[in-house]
Amino acid sequence: MFIKNCWYAAGMSNEIQSGPLARTIINEPIVLYRKADGHIAALEDRCCHRGLPLAHGQVLDGLMQCGYHGLVFDHTGQCVRIPGQEKIPQNARIKSYPVVEQDALIWVWMGDPAKADPAQILRYPWHSDPEWAYDGKYTSIDANYQLLYDNLLDLTHVGYVHRNTIGGEPEAHSNAEMKTTRSDDGVHVIRWLRNSTPPPLYASAFEFHGKVDRWIEIEFSVGAVRIYSGAKDVGQGAYEGNREGGLGLRTLHAVTPSTEDSTFYFWTVARNFKLKQPEVGEKICQEIEATFNEDKAILESQHQRLKAQAGRPLVDIAADAGAIQARRIIASRIAAEVAKPQTKMTDIANAG
Amino acid sequence: MFIKNCWYAAGMSNEIQSGPLARTIINEPIVLYRKADGHIAALEDRCCHRGLPLAHGQVLDGLMQCGYHGLVFDHTGQCVRIPGQEKIPQNARIKSYPVVEQDALIWVWMGDPAKADPAQILRYPWHSDPEWAYDGKYTSIDANYQLLYDNLLDLTHVGYVHRNTIGGEPEAHSNAEMKTTRSDDGVHVIRWLRNSTPPPLYASAFEFHGKVDRWIEIEFSVGAVRIYSGAKDVGQGAYEGNREGGLGLRTLHAVTPSTEDSTFYFWTVARNFKLKQPEVGEKICQEIEATFNEDKAILESQHQRLKAQAGRPLVDIAADAGAIQARRIIASRIAAEVAKPQTKMTDIANAG
Amino acid sequence: MFIKNCWYAAGMSNEIQSGPLARTIINEPIVLYRKADGHIAALEDRCCHRGLPLAHGQVLDGLMQCGYHGLVFDHTGQCVRIPGQEKIPQNARIKSYPVVEQDALIWVWMGDPAKADPAQILRYPWHSDPEWAYDGKYTSIDANYQLLYDNLLDLTHVGYVHRNTIGGEPEAHSNAEMKTTRSDDGVHVIRWLRNSTPPPLYASAFEFHGKVDRWIEIEFSVGAVRIYSGAKDVGQGAYEGNREGGLGLRTLHAVTPSTEDSTFYFWTVARNFKLKQPEVGEKICQEIEATFNEDKAILESQHQRLKAQAGRPLVDIAADAGAIQARRIIASRIAAEVAKPQTKMTDIANAG
Repeated sequence: MFIKNCWYAAGMSNEIQSGPLARTIINEPIVLYRKADGHIAALEDRCCHRGLPLAHGQVLDGLMQCGYHGLVFDHTGQCVRIPGQEKIPQNARIKSYPVVEQDALIWVWMGDPAKADPAQILRYPWHSDPEWAYDGKYTSIDANYQLLYDNLLDLTHVGYVHRNTIGGEPEAHSNAEMKTTRSDDGVHVIRWLRNSTPPPLYASAFEFHGKVDRWIEIEFSVGAVRIYSGAKDVGQGAYEGNREGGLGLRTLHAVTPSTEDSTFYFWTVARNFKLKQPEVGEKICQEIEATFNEDKAILESQHQRLKAQAGRPLVDIAADAGAIQARRIIASRIAAEVAKPQTKMTDIANAG
Repeated sequence: MFIKNCWYAAGMSNEIQSGPLARTIINEPIVLYRKADGHIAALEDRCCHRGLPLAHGQVLDGLMQCGYHGLVFDHTGQCVRIPGQEKIPQNARIKSYPVVEQDALIWVWMGDPAKADPAQILRYPWHSDPEWAYDGKYTSIDANYQLLYDNLLDLTHVGYVHRNTIGGEPEAHSNAEMKTTRSDDGVHVIRWLRNSTPPPLYASAFEFHGKVDRWIEIEFSVGAVRIYSGAKDVGQGAYEGNREGGLGLRTLHAVTPSTEDSTFYFWTVARNFKLKQPEVGEKICQEIEATFNEDKAILESQHQRLKAQAGRPLVDIAADAGAIQARRIIASRIAAEVAKPQTKMTDIANAG
Repeated sequence: MFIKNCWYAAGMSNEIQSGPLARTIINEPIVLYRKADGHIAALEDRCCHRGLPLAHGQVLDGLMQCGYHGLVFDHTGQCVRIPGQEKIPQNARIKSYPVVEQDALIWVWMGDPAKADPAQILRYPWHSDPEWAYDGKYTSIDANYQLLYDNLLDLTHVGYVHRNTIGGEPEAHSNAEMKTTRSDDGVHVIRWLRNSTPPPLYASAFEFHGKVDRWIEIEFSVGAVRIYSGAKDVGQGAYEGNREGGLGLRTLHAVTPSTEDSTFYFWTVARNFKLKQPEVGEKICQEIEATFNEDKAILESQHQRLKAQAGRPLVDIAADAGAIQARRIIASRIAAEVAKPQTKMTDIANAG
């Protein structure tokens, strides 16, 4: 079960150059490409003639040409050319999707096109803010997307799953001060590790003078989790609200369901230090990737075990507070979509 | 859905030497081997004792011995020996299939044995004609067999799928003069590319004096497609009927359904030039194989996409004429087989 | 279908050292580890919190810690620690299994714990008898466990499947004197190859003076087959009961169903000669492993073929006598378990 009326990250801007890119999102195969004007188009990835995925073809003058018999489609999904014949049948068209490129990400709308409002797309200014530098990659995870949200919203896993990378002291994470706040369409979790030892990644990248006050702030909204983390020398006012002069990392975790059993995990990490040293960004990116591969192993194994015994109850613990709120938001949005078909009888009656 | 009352190519003659060969045809596992007299036998590939595929065993004095407990079967499927016991149970027998070796191919009959008429097997004299030399291979394709027929009967795909091999000019293929003729049990398509540039494969193998008149003639019958293609210097009478003195290639494309999702594609290419230069045949064969692997990639991707959304309609175009006729022939033969069970109540009544 | 009230071999003692070991037995995922006192514990391999297999975690002071959020379980399956929280919910517990380590094997009870009687576990003294030395390995087989029992109980396959290893003369095996005896819960088969040539493995390991009387004794009980084989110079009284002074091999074949389609095959081979020469044991072990891989290939192919046409009848032969008895024992034990639910209404009535 997926939310349909939602902007999902379909990829990063730099993934789409001259050729088409195939991505299956909530079970729908999509082909993305750039039009002649450089804007992105998103079409159903299935030629209406014989069903070949269009991503086998080529982008020709900003139009999508099928790689089997050469049919050409425009960004609305209309077939505009059939080699060897003049007349184009009226039904020679495929589905197109609302798509927006913003903040170095490609966002596609999977639900009712009439409801697609670009203003609802998550803004992520740190991809263009001159005071921040970022790097990113994407990890494909063979697990249900909700397990990835759970993972991101309960960071007590850091001490166990990431024992060998960013983990540090498990107890410090588990015993951190935590506050969970639910809004209408999001969840905010903040954790403070006060007077703690900076983890190796921090210590190697920034100059601290001993212990630090360390924060991890998690913002969930449907489609992405933002994690703002950092540290500042202990007692220098960070906890009270002044994080200036500290190390800051802003990570974006766009979570896009591909199928019930697979998920695209697009992530970036932005830093507010050593901006002019790309090798610092690359090193952080490599470490983050190794860390996320640890999550991937856990999530895929967990997914298999849960799937084998679907419906068996689980036991919640205190640290699950944020993840439980996020699951409720998702469940209620799915329930609302299922209950309210997109064209309702009452709408028709009211219109009459 | 498959036609059952039909001779299917099960392999090429040179594939069966001293050992057994396993082939699954229309979902039925078959083991092929040579009897003591050199003729081919075709048995169900499942020992009646414990179910092991007989192809694990060995051919012993022209009989098929199971590789598990040594039971021996003759070409009728009768068990003729059980090691360690005298009496052979009456039900110790397996199914045998009518099989004929002809024109360097092995043909097996999958339907009612009473209807197996070797005279119905497609003749292909170019495998033994002294004026032609041939080479061949087999390509296994993970797609439904009907997609392969579609592919062979609509060669407008050549300019797109084979862009990097035999393609040449896409428009020339799409705009070629085409005529489709339907007979009772076959389809004939002829395409003429008049006054056109010879494709690289032709130009490198034959001496032309500039532009050529080029023909592609496609003959579909259930089980195989024959494609006779060639070219002759422009205006030298080929179009009017005199192809003598031109380059000619005769390709056989035997299409044998293995399962709903996989197909054996046995193909040969015969040439009427440089007969005494085997390296010419090998080179053509290699190029053809590379070309057919391009088809394989397309067909397998197409199959997956169509299967994921089975039943969704497609849009026909003009170039599909031949393929549509072939599908109708197949559909009507399947429908006739389903409607007429092999032993009919009326037959019994009439016999009474 | 599996027998549940049964001790199954879950592994060999030396497989479990400091870390946990995951094994799925009759479809139930289990994690095995050593407690602080060195005894083995067996728990359901699924954390009650978020379902991660516990085998991803670590053994901490003889307790099992989940590798995701650090929950800790004792050997009864009770959660005894949740990082970051004081109170442990009452339902934070997982299933535990009766488990016994005996004769260098780990045995786990999959059925009603109240019925788990360690006295019923198969004794195998040859793993600790000073007059015998043993080696062992485990082979994973992607086939139903009953096919492995069939294989072990009908050794006429040796001449065909093991033609290239221990086979020797197929006819000698097929024509061997054979006697099958059925007890309440087991089957005993004895085969005598009198006045026969010692097989290569025997001849290379032991000094014979020509022909031998060779015995193969097979003992089936649910969970394991024991095969005691050997040979002695012909006419030296072995057949009459005095095997002393001959070569003896005792092989244990523990057969543990993992799923309907996969089986753990734990095997050891013990010898009564050249005890102080470990290289002799290693060589025998290697040859046995190569031999069992021949069985594995046959069983997996057989399993696929039988599964594709489930329910189709097979034809029994005389050599199947032992295997048929074993199948009857298994079938009747499964039927008895299905008929008698573990808590019966009559028990409750009687208790009232």
